[in-house]
Amino acid sequence: MTYSTVSINTPPPYLTLASNEKLPTVLSIAGADSSGGAGIEADIKTITAHRCYAMSCITTLTAQTPVTVYGIQNTPKEVVSQILEANLQDMRCDVIKTGMLTAAAIEVLHEKLLQLGEKRPKLVVDPVLCATSGSSLAGKDVAGLIMDKISPFADVLTPNIPECFKLLGEDRMVNKLEDVFEIAKDIAKITKCSNILVKGGHIPWGNGKEKYVTDVLYLSAEQKYITYKGKFVNTTHTHGTGCTLASAIASNLARGYSLPQSVYGGIEYVQNAITIGCDVTKKAVKDNGPINHVYAVEIPLEKMVSDECFTASDVVSKKQVKGSFDRIPGGNFFQYLINHPKVKPHWDSYVNHEFVKKVANGTLERKKFRFFIEQDYLYLIDYAKVCCVSGSKAPGLKDLEKELLLVDCVREELTQHEKRLREDFGIKDPDHLQKVERGPALRAYCRYLNDISRRGNWQEIVVALNPCLMGYVHALIKLKDQVTVAEGTLYREWCNTCLSSWSYEAMLEGERLLNRILETYPPEQLDTLVSIFAEGCELEANFWTAAMKYE
Amino acid sequence: MTYSTVSINTPPPYLTLASNEKLPTVLSIAGADSSGGAGIEADIKTITAHRCYAMSCITTLTAQTPVTVYGIQNTPKEVVSQILEANLQDMRCDVIKTGMLTAAAIEVLHEKLLQLGEKRPKLVVDPVLCATSGSSLAGKDVAGLIMDKISPFADVLTPNIPECFKLLGEDRMVNKLEDVFEIAKDIAKITKCSNILVKGGHIPWGNGKEKYVTDVLYLSAEQKYITYKGKFVNTTHTHGTGCTLASAIASNLARGYSLPQSVYGGIEYVQNAITIGCDVTKKAVKDNGPINHVYAVEIPLEKMVSDECFTASDVVSKKQVKGSFDRIPGGNFFQYLINHPKVKPHWDSYVNHEFVKKVANGTLERKKFRFFIEQDYLYLIDYAKVCCVSGSKAPGLKDLEKELLLVDCVREELTQHEKRLREDFGIKDPDHLQKVERGPALRAYCRYLNDISRRGNWQEIVVALNPCLMGYVHALIKLKDQVTVAEGTLYREWCNTCLSSWSYEAMLEGERLLNRILETYPPEQLDTLVSIFAEGCELEANFWTAAMKYE
Repeated sequence: MTYSTVSINTPPPYLTLASNEKLPTVLSIAGADSSGGAGIEADIKTITAHRCYAMSCITTLTAQTPVTVYGIQNTPKEVVSQILEANLQDMRCDVIKTGMLTAAAIEVLHEKLLQLGEKRPKLVVDPVLCATSGSSLAGKDVAGLIMDKISPFADVLTPNIPECFKLLGEDRMVNKLEDVFEIAKDIAKITKCSNILVKGGHIPWGNGKEKYVTDVLYLSAEQKYITYKGKFVNTTHTHGTGCTLASAIASNLARGYSLPQSVYGGIEYVQNAITIGCDVTKKAVKDNGPINHVYAVEIPLEKMVSDECFTASDVVSKKQVKGSFDRIPGGNFFQYLINHPKVKPHWDSYVNHEFVKKVANGTLERKKFRFFIEQDYLYLIDYAKVCCVSGSKAPGLKDLEKELLLVDCVREELTQHEKRLREDFGIKDPDHLQKVERGPALRAYCRYLNDISRRGNWQEIVVALNPCLMGYVHALIKLKDQVTVAEGTLYREWCNTCLSSWSYEAMLEGERLLNRILETYPPEQLDTLVSIFAEGCELEANFWTAAMKYE
Repeated sequence: MTYSTVSINTPPPYLTLASNEKLPTVLSIAGADSSGGAGIEADIKTITAHRCYAMSCITTLTAQTPVTVYGIQNTPKEVVSQILEANLQDMRCDVIKTGMLTAAAIEVLHEKLLQLGEKRPKLVVDPVLCATSGSSLAGKDVAGLIMDKISPFADVLTPNIPECFKLLGEDRMVNKLEDVFEIAKDIAKITKCSNILVKGGHIPWGNGKEKYVTDVLYLSAEQKYITYKGKFVNTTHTHGTGCTLASAIASNLARGYSLPQSVYGGIEYVQNAITIGCDVTKKAVKDNGPINHVYAVEIPLEKMVSDECFTASDVVSKKQVKGSFDRIPGGNFFQYLINHPKVKPHWDSYVNHEFVKKVANGTLERKKFRFFIEQDYLYLIDYAKVCCVSGSKAPGLKDLEKELLLVDCVREELTQHEKRLREDFGIKDPDHLQKVERGPALRAYCRYLNDISRRGNWQEIVVALNPCLMGYVHALIKLKDQVTVAEGTLYREWCNTCLSSWSYEAMLEGERLLNRILETYPPEQLDTLVSIFAEGCELEANFWTAAMKYE
């Protein structure tokens, strides 16, 4: 017999500050989807992923997969009634969200809403009549019952286009955004619900290359239409999007956000969940699948183990990683990266960019250069922050200090930028840079870096920060003989800075760092680093393109 | 009419790296708890909080609150059968977790397990017979059925003590840990399940002041007992702990952790969820409540809005905060803190610590001082990392750079420590410090700092880092006339360092920083900062106490 004792060394004291946390609560009234992707399961997942507390009232049990419904079992009216009674009487209920409703559930809920009067919780109604796949989920009587008994109490109704047609009792042509506005307004009229979100997932707009989806929120009291323009994701893995969106909106409302805000957050959540997706089905249903509700959730045990202060390492040990340095022919990861087929086109268009050529020969319009300087200034501040995060995740103090050297470089460059704006562009306002507007290229780049700094490990952040560190020098080296702009000018000074021995040193340090991170990076994930580097180069190139195009 | 368009600017490209994520999957077969704290709702919440994919098979619907069951509706056998069929046939199913089972569900599951043979998923069986509250949930026949038809297939069975008695068919005395070992072994024998986790929540050990809970995992194949020793939390808000633990274990198994690892992670998760708790019930059931499944989940919309690159700021604006600096009489937050009744006792025992007195008069045993130096060395490396995180969360570059100055101080102090160990303690091994074992006081302190650095905002991290920065100087100032240890000695040199003009300057900078953070900290949360400062002082005092007690 072996005996061993392990201490559970949590919770860390800080967690206890949140003692008895007043979680916002959402009661979902909906059908259950045994496959977990839609219905009340999707609701509970979504509410949980929003750090809210979920309660449930299951109106019907289904045996289903993302493609087929095998069986249905409605919950008897008296059980629905007992459940609503128990939840409304003894639990705090901030928001009610409804999904698939039976006639019995509609009747019970209607009575409760009448009883509660002004004290009733907020109500988000997803009028589940047609599934995302387009198939009809409820008879016409349910549509009528929802309009008669539920929607007049709702704070927002979230039909998709086919559901709009069912509610309106007619199909309509949708050729332009105004048609959707019209539909929203008419739905508000017949449902007596003052706020309507018409979901546009069924009718992507735009050309073949870049499609987008618009969801229209109509606020009748303010006579206002807000159009949310999202990315269209070309996938059939959309099982559960409707339930998820309504639950996300309900969670945001429960937390105190306004309706337009809650809708924004809901759409962003669903868009991420679709884009990332998940693979949980077997072959037979491979073409259809659920969305990924947990894309932003950290894995508790991994987080614990990664913690230096984790005391149960005899039970749960850190994974020993054999680094991937040996995999790199020639032992120079930087060369490997820039010659990788995934990277090469982006690296090439980055370091051979027209922008740099025009600076070097002095033909770039000054206002474009000024735009670059200003955007770069804001970029560099975010860059410095991400360097700090990278430092905090570095394996030891030496690596940490290397990251902080980058912050010094940033400070140096920022001081140069301030000087350029002051002396070359005559900007006197000390708050000028605070007022500069962030362009789309800057925003995309910074959001990317911020996201990696949150989710990525040390190695991934190092790679994300690398293209900026290396590319400027390389671009100028390539142009060395073509730097014809006069000495003493702004452009010449900028070129000289990029070519200075100091920049050169930083570049060599960057190469060493890229090799260093491979010592502890698992070989099977090497492709992740390649992708990050490629995306970084692309974002850099876009950054210069934005300056070129600035008018 | 007003029209506006908002772009949804996600997903950030990095997220797309995880495209089609292969989420580990868990199928929960259990009863539904409408109040959301236990049953299949708790399972889905737990599995979601573990970044896994949950499927469900609802064996029975209940209308209940954390204190009363109002109604029960069992799912017909054929529906259970359809659900299991659909999930096992078309969905990938890594682990099955069972909770409350009906006779019908047991029969269906038994057949499926037989059919699947060696291809069956892992199986975690929580033999729900008695609720955490002690009340009986199933008749004796269910206990028998589980033993006959389910437990022989299980990878682990997780009964609590009353459930053990039910399974054994007799009550037993539990006076010592060996009694639990005996129970576990006997349960393994009669259930034919080779791994048993006997949950000890019902029998806390230890004296009144510090109670703890032991869960015993018996691994019959290896003839091994692992005792998990956790903190006993004195609360009646424990509704759903059993379901949650089994689901957490199932999630960890699905991710590929071993059973002892999965159990560790599960217990830690439940312990956090109990300790933090949540307030979601109304008065009538105030004394009982669910645990907090979402304590580690970030709020999506808050995260987005805090992002500098968030583009929809016209829809979701950052909250404007009126700072709390005006609330501080005299305008010195540091003085306010150390005189606050919550802080004062901890600050006093910190800065008047015996350890420093004994260093100052030269009477501290040298091995204790060496222990302090070694532990402090490891502490300071973590401290530097947390400074980096603080910098990354600072509002601007100036504040960021202030945080990084602290890293320079840390580097300086580390160099001193290395010198002390080399010259005063004759340590030649360059890897010596890597081999030093982390004592409990160090681990507690670092875990605290790490946790704040993850969850806290800039201001909270600044306060957490502050006691270390301020206390050493203040402790030595108080002792100024009592520093009698000879000049030129190790202890004298250390005292001189604490009293150097350089330390003094750092202290003044610390005071300024404390005032600075108040400019943007909401007054209504001021108490959080007070608590953090108090806890920091306590952890500092414990750190010195640990050195005093070192033998």
